Amino acid sequence: MSSLIRDWAASTPEMLAAFGDEALIAAALAFEMALARALAAEGLIPQAAAEAIADACASPPAEAATLAREAAHAGTFAIPLVRRIRARVAQSHPEFADAVHWGATSQDVADTTLMVMSREAGELVDAGLRRLGRALADLTHRHVATPMLGRTLLQGAMPITFGLKTAGWMLGVEEARARFARERDDALQLQLGGAAGTMAGLAGRGTAIAKRMAATLGLAPAITPWHSRRDGVAGLGCALALVTCAVAKIARDVSLLSQGEVGEAREPRVEGRGGSSAMPHKHNPTGCQVALSAAIRAPGLAGTLLVALPQEHERGLGGWQAEGPVIAELFELAHGAIAAMAAVIEGLEVFEAAMMRNLAAAQVGSDTGESEALARRALAAIAAAEPA
Amino acid sequence: MSSLIRDWAASTPEMLAAFGDEALIAAALAFEMALARALAAEGLIPQAAAEAIADACASPPAEAATLAREAAHAGTFAIPLVRRIRARVAQSHPEFADAVHWGATSQDVADTTLMVMSREAGELVDAGLRRLGRALADLTHRHVATPMLGRTLLQGAMPITFGLKTAGWMLGVEEARARFARERDDALQLQLGGAAGTMAGLAGRGTAIAKRMAATLGLAPAITPWHSRRDGVAGLGCALALVTCAVAKIARDVSLLSQGEVGEAREPRVEGRGGSSAMPHKHNPTGCQVALSAAIRAPGLAGTLLVALPQEHERGLGGWQAEGPVIAELFELAHGAIAAMAAVIEGLEVFEAAMMRNLAAAQVGSDTGESEALARRALAAIAAAEPA
Amino acid sequence: MSSLIRDWAASTPEMLAAFGDEALIAAALAFEMALARALAAEGLIPQAAAEAIADACASPPAEAATLAREAAHAGTFAIPLVRRIRARVAQSHPEFADAVHWGATSQDVADTTLMVMSREAGELVDAGLRRLGRALADLTHRHVATPMLGRTLLQGAMPITFGLKTAGWMLGVEEARARFARERDDALQLQLGGAAGTMAGLAGRGTAIAKRMAATLGLAPAITPWHSRRDGVAGLGCALALVTCAVAKIARDVSLLSQGEVGEAREPRVEGRGGSSAMPHKHNPTGCQVALSAAIRAPGLAGTLLVALPQEHERGLGGWQAEGPVIAELFELAHGAIAAMAAVIEGLEVFEAAMMRNLAAAQVGSDTGESEALARRALAAIAAAEPA
Amino acid sequence: MSSLIRDWAASTPEMLAAFGDEALIAAALAFEMALARALAAEGLIPQAAAEAIADACASPPAEAATLAREAAHAGTFAIPLVRRIRARVAQSHPEFADAVHWGATSQDVADTTLMVMSREAGELVDAGLRRLGRALADLTHRHVATPMLGRTLLQGAMPITFGLKTAGWMLGVEEARARFARERDDALQLQLGGAAGTMAGLAGRGTAIAKRMAATLGLAPAITPWHSRRDGVAGLGCALALVTCAVAKIARDVSLLSQGEVGEAREPRVEGRGGSSAMPHKHNPTGCQVALSAAIRAPGLAGTLLVALPQEHERGLGGWQAEGPVIAELFELAHGAIAAMAAVIEGLEVFEAAMMRNLAAAQVGSDTGESEALARRALAAIAAAEPA
Repeated sequence: MSSLIRDWAASTPEMLAAFGDEALIAAALAFEMALARALAAEGLIPQAAAEAIADACASPPAEAATLAREAAHAGTFAIPLVRRIRARVAQSHPEFADAVHWGATSQDVADTTLMVMSREAGELVDAGLRRLGRALADLTHRHVATPMLGRTLLQGAMPITFGLKTAGWMLGVEEARARFARERDDALQLQLGGAAGTMAGLAGRGTAIAKRMAATLGLAPAITPWHSRRDGVAGLGCALALVTCAVAKIARDVSLLSQGEVGEAREPRVEGRGGSSAMPHKHNPTGCQVALSAAIRAPGLAGTLLVALPQEHERGLGGWQAEGPVIAELFELAHGAIAAMAAVIEGLEVFEAAMMRNLAAAQVGSDTGESEALARRALAAIAAAEPA
Repeated sequence: MSSLIRDWAASTPEMLAAFGDEALIAAALAFEMALARALAAEGLIPQAAAEAIADACASPPAEAATLAREAAHAGTFAIPLVRRIRARVAQSHPEFADAVHWGATSQDVADTTLMVMSREAGELVDAGLRRLGRALADLTHRHVATPMLGRTLLQGAMPITFGLKTAGWMLGVEEARARFARERDDALQLQLGGAAGTMAGLAGRGTAIAKRMAATLGLAPAITPWHSRRDGVAGLGCALALVTCAVAKIARDVSLLSQGEVGEAREPRVEGRGGSSAMPHKHNPTGCQVALSAAIRAPGLAGTLLVALPQEHERGLGGWQAEGPVIAELFELAHGAIAAMAAVIEGLEVFEAAMMRNLAAAQVGSDTGESEALARRALAAIAAAEPA
Repeated sequence: MSSLIRDWAASTPEMLAAFGDEALIAAALAFEMALARALAAEGLIPQAAAEAIADACASPPAEAATLAREAAHAGTFAIPLVRRIRARVAQSHPEFADAVHWGATSQDVADTTLMVMSREAGELVDAGLRRLGRALADLTHRHVATPMLGRTLLQGAMPITFGLKTAGWMLGVEEARARFARERDDALQLQLGGAAGTMAGLAGRGTAIAKRMAATLGLAPAITPWHSRRDGVAGLGCALALVTCAVAKIARDVSLLSQGEVGEAREPRVEGRGGSSAMPHKHNPTGCQVALSAAIRAPGLAGTLLVALPQEHERGLGGWQAEGPVIAELFELAHGAIAAMAAVIEGLEVFEAAMMRNLAAAQVGSDTGESEALARRALAAIAAAEPA
Repeated sequence: MSSLIRDWAASTPEMLAAFGDEALIAAALAFEMALARALAAEGLIPQAAAEAIADACASPPAEAATLAREAAHAGTFAIPLVRRIRARVAQSHPEFADAVHWGATSQDVADTTLMVMSREAGELVDAGLRRLGRALADLTHRHVATPMLGRTLLQGAMPITFGLKTAGWMLGVEEARARFARERDDALQLQLGGAAGTMAGLAGRGTAIAKRMAATLGLAPAITPWHSRRDGVAGLGCALALVTCAVAKIARDVSLLSQGEVGEAREPRVEGRGGSSAMPHKHNPTGCQVALSAAIRAPGLAGTLLVALPQEHERGLGGWQAEGPVIAELFELAHGAIAAMAAVIEGLEVFEAAMMRNLAAAQVGSDTGESEALARRALAAIAAAEPA
């Protein structure tokens, strides 16, 4: 589908690259190269075969569009990719052609490729969340004692401080970050099982080969192949949706505070963004829009990964094939939301006078209770959780 | 995200084109051109202005990738697109530059563009469903009296005929097609409301202008602008998900019948598809895989459109912006599933001997009840519903 | 689960009764009674047997709680129900015991029971939507020309009239009502197929029997049994979710207009509702809360019915068994939302002075464009659609 | 809705009790009692007031049905509950009536009550998963070297051992259990924030009071009130859905292995379960049905909790009110699935001869690769993770 409909408005250039054609083909080639070298190291193929395969994997074997068409026909991109690598090897070293992809199945490449891309993508998400967390901590420090009207059920309720509100945003983001980190650590595993997940054809060296490959590719080795045990993938997806929605909570509040009649905060004006051709006076909360839109889309995608879970037998029909685009989209939406709101929070305009005015108008007194102490405790908890 | 992860394996080249960059830009340009001509016809701008604008819309104003980047910054593709058209007009006819996009808002372009693309896409879906329906009717005719084992709760139950089973598939597809046709007719409306949906600035000629534009663009005119009344979009999305899942019901059954131990049917072997590098003996049900995978993904997307429905005020924040990619993906998945299963049904290998053998082994007698009569009634009902 | 967690806060007493124990058992007994009478009318069992069975079905054969426990053990409520009816018949007429449930399968009872309850429930939904529609038409008439600030992306945009806003609500509700009516008409079909959907054991009179039963029970006869063709159920569920979310759109807007700083509308104060023990000044939008909460829950339930669609073979494992509670919950949520918002709209407090004040403060002039004409057109369209 | 539609067939009596009327009212009374005692301990109310309140909370203040109706009217069960407790206190000690619920808001009671019930429910889930895990370990031990046909994409592929298959089930269950345990530990927090989450009116002793209450109620204290920071709830819900779907993976495989033509395994026959009135020869996989049905329903519910996340301001409108029934339903479905499959695995009939026969018929040799070693490694990993 046109990038004008999707990617660009919802994600970031870095994240789009992390799941782009180049990254995918590179990851798949890295898999085949790592497999060949591990096979050689364990004595299953000659060292020269590994080198011949590595040479054949040094550059993409075809244009992405060509591979995509072939993949559509074959039902998986692994088949045309492997065939083309094998053809390259056969040209120079016909005796090593059979060593390409030895012991592996298409899903081994597909799953590992997805995990390698997810590792890169995960670092972007983590860095983005840390950036957003820092901006939220700064904002909380600045406004730890700024009084404003607390609102419940969309009605004015009792006084709070703005710092207590932002501390809640901050804790929500931090909790989502911690969960994502855990799920990512669990999910990022190498896949190597062969046709039915038994590591057949690897002369009993399957585990050793997998260990070598995992080290090379920066993934954890799996206890057993996880071809049809997909809770790691689904857990990762749920964590990404949670990240997105925790970030959107901030966008919900900022957009409500930015309403003309409230006027307590406003996302920073960015030249050429959030304007309206028809209404030059407008200053739309475009950053919030990106995050809220992502939060509308993420839950259904996380649910999809759960739906896909009960996959048939050793490798299922339709389930794991549904996961790749969904995981990629969840990463894209999460990072788009994070990046948009990090910019919003870093440059947020806060109108304390409006806060005072609205608070006074609500006639609910001025007792902010333990707001300040609670916000400080949140800051301390976050600081304590930070690595030295 | 890489097309190797998504589009190609899940959809068809025609459907990918229907939501491609070229189609989207063409639809947006058609909107601006139709608007200019309707404005001129209603006397709001000079005829010469309409011609100047039409000239400026005769070709894409920039590469899709450029527009995508600008759209990401602006928050909508309408802003850079209109700016570029306006710049083109300004070069030749500076006095007409302001007439570009007159009276319209970004969402008018975005919504109408989505509907124009959906109209084309809808014809593909409809044609695909009719093709699949014909194949199912043929199959039903051929096997109206072929006895086989009926299975309930995944256990052998009682005799049926294969024609009764395929009649159920056929009715499911036809019911889904009829619902899709209704929802499509309801949803495909022009959007023209201006900044707040009031048709302000159109000198009271808004309705007349919208009527002209609708006729030009092959859409229905709306009773009132539907900027924040999105049940048409959500209804269309639910109908597409239903289509996908009704088609996947066939895939579920075919894949179960294709199990080695059952062996009653098999999707046609396509050179280069459904094979396995590791297992030359395998003949994977790749067509069924495409449909089942689509059916795992479609429900979450339909749910997303429902989640997006309660949009704020005159034009919402985040809701309608979430819809475009979701609708496009639902069309892509639906058409991918339909095309895959049409090919499967047209070439389905049916093994009557295996059906007889499994039926006999189940020791449930041979009384197929009214199976044949029921299948014939379904065929008659479908034939009666057909246009002459 | 405790009714304090669920039913009461989300639905209405009438709707809870429509899916209550009493209604369910009555519908199941009506099925067995109608089956017996149709069997007799078609000459398959003696008239006396039909009367004996009708007598046995005149009252619930056991407490609901007892049947529920037995159903949990058996995996379906049909098994204990039929066993108990049969036992009753056997006491007075042992020779007719076998005639009970003759030719039917558990799913026939379960599906038909669900449809009979859905018919009653559907009348509640329809009546509620008509009531809400009338209230919206009245409100639109009253405020067709009341100027207020139109808001887009949660920012003040351009002037509109309140009547244009409420006309949008009204059209949204009416479109959702029309879709629901269509889906209901399609879905409400009798189920009678026997063990494998072939009508075996009914001496070729299955279709005639089904036709009689359908007439008795107020349902349409099916072309063929739909044991594993569930698009009607899923379509009905999607329509209910759409109804709920179209109603929640109104709640979204009313709750935003009710914010203290906006103050343009307020749901009517109901003694004992929407108050706060801690904050006597508060007047919470509890009606809106009910609708918004329902709209958060309905999409996932509609998606569930889509997920369940590709059911296995003649009668599936797990799919149709998942539908009953989901359909019932969708009806409950829809009716809860409708009833809550009908009361809100009927008694809505509108503060025109605040509308004027906020409009003036936004400095966007006073041109409401064609707002009034558009609202009147919506009223005319609705009036034209009404039956005489 | 009728328990014949929902609870009983999908859950267990213990879990239904954990979210039953009695449990809910008891938890709410425990909250008020713990609050009163903590207030007294911190010197905010006299000790005698705490005792008077504790006396008033010693028994339910009204029938559940009465409270439910009052809750529906008020919009929350806390309002009638507190009013009735206060009335009881007022009878004996009018001077202490105001001390009831002092400093708390309705959501404090509602959230804490949900967490107290979730704690009990969580122990049931955990115990169920451990039971299932033990049964899976036993099964794996027994069949670590039993050869069978491995199946991929629903086609026979290569030899595996049954123990490798069951080891995958076991690891999936264990991973889901570990995730659930983490999420539960994170989520089970006391809620005490008062009207706007500031702990106003508690004389600066709010944190101390909350700490005491948390200890009494067996929950963790929160860093700050989490009235509108709901990632803990959503995380818990996702973990429950993952548990359900990991269990359903087993049901998927068992039901496929139980097909008549495959005949390699069968869930134990339970008197009165899984039979068919129409087909005495049938032995339906009813346990698998319960789990598969739950797995169809759980993903939409988890998605609902994600949708609800971006809640407004200090306490939202509609979001948190949607969570209670959804969390309860997720617990009910999870436990129903676990209990059903624990019984299935404990009594699973395994037909090794059929496994041999199907394997031989597939003509894929007999090399099970490292199946046995992999299964043993999984057992060792599970054993190592166990507490001594």
